[in-house]
Amino acid sequence: MRVAVVGAGVSGLAATKCCLDEGLEPTCFEQSQDIGGVWRYTEHIEAGRPSLYASVISNTSKEMSAFSDFPFPEHFPAFLPNALLLDYLRRYTEHFGLREHIRFGSTVVSIRKRPDFATTGQWEVVTEAGGKQTSHVFDAVMVCSGSFSEPSLPLQCFPGIERFRGQRFHSRQYKHPDVFQGKRVLVVGMGNTGVDIAVEASRVAAKVTISTTRGAWLLSRVSEHGYPWDMILNTRLMTLIKTKLPAPLSWRLINYKVNQWFNHENYGLQPENSWLVREPLVNDELPSYILTGRITIRPGVKEFKDSSVLFHNCPEEEPIDVVVFSTGYTISFPFLEESIIRVENKHMSLYKYVFPPRLQKPTLAVLGVIKPFGAIMPVAEMQARWVSRVFKGLCQLPPQAVMEKEVNEKKKNQIQWFGLTFDEVLKTEWLGYLDTLASFIGAKPSVLGLLCTDPWLALTIFFGPCSPYQYRLGGPGRWQGARQAILAQWDRVLKPTRTRVPAGSSSSLLSLLTVARFLLLLAAVVFGFL
Amino acid sequence: MRVAVVGAGVSGLAATKCCLDEGLEPTCFEQSQDIGGVWRYTEHIEAGRPSLYASVISNTSKEMSAFSDFPFPEHFPAFLPNALLLDYLRRYTEHFGLREHIRFGSTVVSIRKRPDFATTGQWEVVTEAGGKQTSHVFDAVMVCSGSFSEPSLPLQCFPGIERFRGQRFHSRQYKHPDVFQGKRVLVVGMGNTGVDIAVEASRVAAKVTISTTRGAWLLSRVSEHGYPWDMILNTRLMTLIKTKLPAPLSWRLINYKVNQWFNHENYGLQPENSWLVREPLVNDELPSYILTGRITIRPGVKEFKDSSVLFHNCPEEEPIDVVVFSTGYTISFPFLEESIIRVENKHMSLYKYVFPPRLQKPTLAVLGVIKPFGAIMPVAEMQARWVSRVFKGLCQLPPQAVMEKEVNEKKKNQIQWFGLTFDEVLKTEWLGYLDTLASFIGAKPSVLGLLCTDPWLALTIFFGPCSPYQYRLGGPGRWQGARQAILAQWDRVLKPTRTRVPAGSSSSLLSLLTVARFLLLLAAVVFGFL
Repeated sequence: MRVAVVGAGVSGLAATKCCLDEGLEPTCFEQSQDIGGVWRYTEHIEAGRPSLYASVISNTSKEMSAFSDFPFPEHFPAFLPNALLLDYLRRYTEHFGLREHIRFGSTVVSIRKRPDFATTGQWEVVTEAGGKQTSHVFDAVMVCSGSFSEPSLPLQCFPGIERFRGQRFHSRQYKHPDVFQGKRVLVVGMGNTGVDIAVEASRVAAKVTISTTRGAWLLSRVSEHGYPWDMILNTRLMTLIKTKLPAPLSWRLINYKVNQWFNHENYGLQPENSWLVREPLVNDELPSYILTGRITIRPGVKEFKDSSVLFHNCPEEEPIDVVVFSTGYTISFPFLEESIIRVENKHMSLYKYVFPPRLQKPTLAVLGVIKPFGAIMPVAEMQARWVSRVFKGLCQLPPQAVMEKEVNEKKKNQIQWFGLTFDEVLKTEWLGYLDTLASFIGAKPSVLGLLCTDPWLALTIFFGPCSPYQYRLGGPGRWQGARQAILAQWDRVLKPTRTRVPAGSSSSLLSLLTVARFLLLLAAVVFGFL
Repeated sequence: MRVAVVGAGVSGLAATKCCLDEGLEPTCFEQSQDIGGVWRYTEHIEAGRPSLYASVISNTSKEMSAFSDFPFPEHFPAFLPNALLLDYLRRYTEHFGLREHIRFGSTVVSIRKRPDFATTGQWEVVTEAGGKQTSHVFDAVMVCSGSFSEPSLPLQCFPGIERFRGQRFHSRQYKHPDVFQGKRVLVVGMGNTGVDIAVEASRVAAKVTISTTRGAWLLSRVSEHGYPWDMILNTRLMTLIKTKLPAPLSWRLINYKVNQWFNHENYGLQPENSWLVREPLVNDELPSYILTGRITIRPGVKEFKDSSVLFHNCPEEEPIDVVVFSTGYTISFPFLEESIIRVENKHMSLYKYVFPPRLQKPTLAVLGVIKPFGAIMPVAEMQARWVSRVFKGLCQLPPQAVMEKEVNEKKKNQIQWFGLTFDEVLKTEWLGYLDTLASFIGAKPSVLGLLCTDPWLALTIFFGPCSPYQYRLGGPGRWQGARQAILAQWDRVLKPTRTRVPAGSSSSLLSLLTVARFLLLLAAVVFGFL
C-alpha cells in the first residue's frame, strides 16, 4: 500500500515513520531541500514556507514534546531553542531511516480522486520538481503541509490603516529585533508570537505597545517550584479536575491559579470573557516587562492615523513608527479540491480534526492542523499512528452519518463562541484528545490495570506528567523502553540544569520528594475545594 | 553652620536637602558636570565615576525607593529604568532648589582635621576645579562619594588567568551586549550585575556560563500576584516574622518561600551555606534562561587555561572566548586619612555604618555605603536626616566606648562569617535599620499609638509595605502629604499597568481586596507554622 505524505515537517516525519511501522510504503514530498518544516530557521523568508524568528524557543517541554518512542537526549535543555528542536528532528529522521523516503524539492501541485476512487480509494498526485510535473498514483494520502505558511492579515478590520505612513508588516516577516531600534512599536494581536516580538522589541525600541481586544491568560515555562508548566498541568489528575469538575468550580480554580503569578487585571491582560478562554499563552518575560514599563498593554485598535493610533476606550492618540500585525495564519490546501475539505466560517469539517467525513473511502487524512494546549509533536504522531491503521484497514471509522453529526456539533459549538478566531476553533483539550485517538488503536494505558501489576508506574502515570511514552506501554507499536522512559523523565529534565551541586545536596531523595509533591498537590487541590 | 557634601548622587542630594531642612548651609562638591551619580548613564566610562550598563532597571519599586517626602510621579512604572530614576532625581533637585548649592566640576582632593579640631570640630577641605586647588573650612562633612567607582578585580584568586588569551574585563566596562555576539562567555561572580550581564549576553552569544562559588537565592521583581517584591516582603509584619521567630523556623520559612518560584538546587543556584545567606538577588529572567539552556550555572573557577576554564568538581574543560569579572567594587576614600576611617579586613569601623567612632567631635559622616535588602534611597535620606541633627547638636551620639563596642561586635560577627565578601558585611536588615535611625530623631511611627487615633492608617502601616512616607508622619521634618501618600501607594503602583480595563472590572473593590490579601497572608503565615 503506497502512501503519499505531503511535507517533511514534524507531522510529515511522524507520518512517514508510522507508515513504515505499519508496513506501508510512504513517499514524502517536501518542497524545500531539507526536513524540519516550521522548525527549520532560515534568515530569508521563502514563499509558501513557514518563517520563524531567530529566538523561537519551544513552548512545551522536551519530555512532553518527544515522539513517543524517541526521548530527547538527556543533555538537551527542558525547553528547546529552535536549532535544538531541528537537531532532534534530524536525529529522529536518521534513527528511523526516514530520509530515503523523502523526495526533496518536490512540490505537490494537485491531489485528485482517481476515477475509480469509490472502489479503490486511490489518488492521483501531481508533483513538480525542477519545473517538471509528474503524476503518481497513491493508495492513500496524508496531508502534513502545516498551518504556518499563509499569513492572515485582515486589514479591513483596522480603519484608517491605508492612511498610516509608518512601517507595517506581518509577524511572519520578523527575524531580528534590530528593525525596532529607537522606534515606537505597536504589536497588534497577542498570541505567543506577538508577545515574543514585543518583548524582544522592547530591548531596543523607544516604546512598545501591545494592542489586544481579547486579552489572555499567561503562563510561564517556569511553573511551580521551577518545573516545566506542561509537566505540572498536563497530568491525568489535573485533566480530571479540569474536565470533570462543575464548570464554575473548574473556572474558579483556573482563575485562581493563573492569577497567582500576577493579577491579570492589574497588568491589563484580563481576558474579556475570561470563562470562555481556555488556553493561556506561554511567556516568561511579559509580566516583568510590563511592571518595569518596557511594554504597555492597550485595548483593540479603533483607528489608525497618519503616524499614530487610537485605541478603544482611550482618549489619547499614541504616536507609532512601526506596526507588527501578529494576526496569525490562514489554513489552506491549494492542492486539494474544495469538495474534499471545506473551510467554511473558519471551520474545517474534519472528523477528529483528521478525516474528511464524506469520502467514500477513508484514504485521505490531514495531520497536525490542531492547536491543543500542549505539545503538537506527540499529537501529530498519534494521529499518524491512527491514520496508518485506518489506511491499513485495522481500524474502522464510524459510519459517515455519525462522523458528520460530530463535525456539525463542533460547528454549533463554534457559533456559541462567535467571534473567536480560527485558532480558537482548533484548540482542544490535549490529554483527552490523545487518549481518544490512543483508545482507537488500543494504545491507551490502563491506570487501573497497571495498579495491580505495576503500582509505581500506575501512580507515576496518574499523578505525573502525561509524557507521550505512556502510549507505547502496550498495543500496536509497543516500545520496550517506554516504562524506563517514563520513570526517568524527571531525571532527564533536571540533568541539564543541575550543573552545580553543592556538597550535601539531596539528589538521591529526588524521586521520593517528587512523590511527596504529588500527594501534597492532590491534598491542596482537594482541600482547596472543600 | 557650613557643611561640605562630597558628591551629588542619591546620598549627596539627600544630604544637601536635609541640611537645608535643618537650616544648615550645605556646599555639595560634584566632580562631574551633572547630578545623579551611579544613576546617570554615560556611553563612555569616566575614571573615578560609576559606570552603568544601558539596560539597568532599579531592583526596588518606586514606592519603596522614593525619598520620604517626594513620591515618584504616578505614571512612572513600578520599577525604574535608569533614565527615569535620573529623571526623578532631577525633579527632586529642582523641587527643593538643590542645584544652587552644588559646585559642579569640583573634585574633593583632601579632607583634614583643622588644628583646633578638638574644640571646633572643623575640617579643611581642599577641592580642585579646572586644575586649580582651593582650600575651604567647613564645620562638618558628609561623605557621599558612593561605592561604585573602584572595581575590585582579585586576579590572584584565579590561577592561570595570566595564561588566558581570550578577552577579559570587569563588569564595570560593560555597556551593551553586542560585544558578546557569537562568543562563548563566562561571567565570574553572581551579583545582580553578573546575572543581568549573563542574561543580556545569552541573547546574542554562542554560550553563556555563570561561575559562582557561593550560589544565591533569587527573587523576581514580580512577586506574589504580581506585586513588587519589596512591597510584599518589606513590611513590618514580615520583618517581625523574620527577626523574631527562632532562627531555624525563620530559615525554614525563607527556604520554603524562595524555592516556591523554582527549586534552587535543581537550577544549580543553591547557596552553599544557605542558612547564612540572608539577602537574595533580584532578577526576573534567570530561571527561564537556565531552563531553556541559554545560561548554564557552574561552580567556582579552579583554573584558567589558554582558551578554556576548569571549574571545581567538573571534569571537563569549557572553551571560553570572553570572561566578565563581576566581582564587585572596593570602597575607598582617597581624600581621607586612614586614621579617620579604617577599612581593615574588609570592614569599615563606622557606628551604624555612618559615624567614625573615635573622632573627638562627631562632625564627619559617611552616607550610603550600606547594602540593605531594600531600597537605598530612603536609607541614605534617613542617614542624612539623622546626621544633620547630630551636626546641629539636636541628637547625641553614645559615648565613644559604646560605639566602639558595637563596631567591634560587628567585626566579630564578620569573623564568624569568614569568607563572605565585603558586600556581605555591609548588608543589614532594611526596615530595622530605618526604624533605628528614625527612633534617634523621633520620626519612627508608632503603630500602637495610631491604632487609637487612625486605625486604618495603623493597619496599613503594619500589614502593608513600609514605604518611606511612614517616616514623615511625625517628628522633625513632618510632611502633611505623608498620610495620603501611604494610603494611595497601591494606586500609584497599579496606575501605569492598568492600561486596558475590560468592562465590569473590579477596580473599585481594589482597596478592600488589598486588605483581604493582608489578612489572608497573615493567616497563611500563622497556619503555616502551627
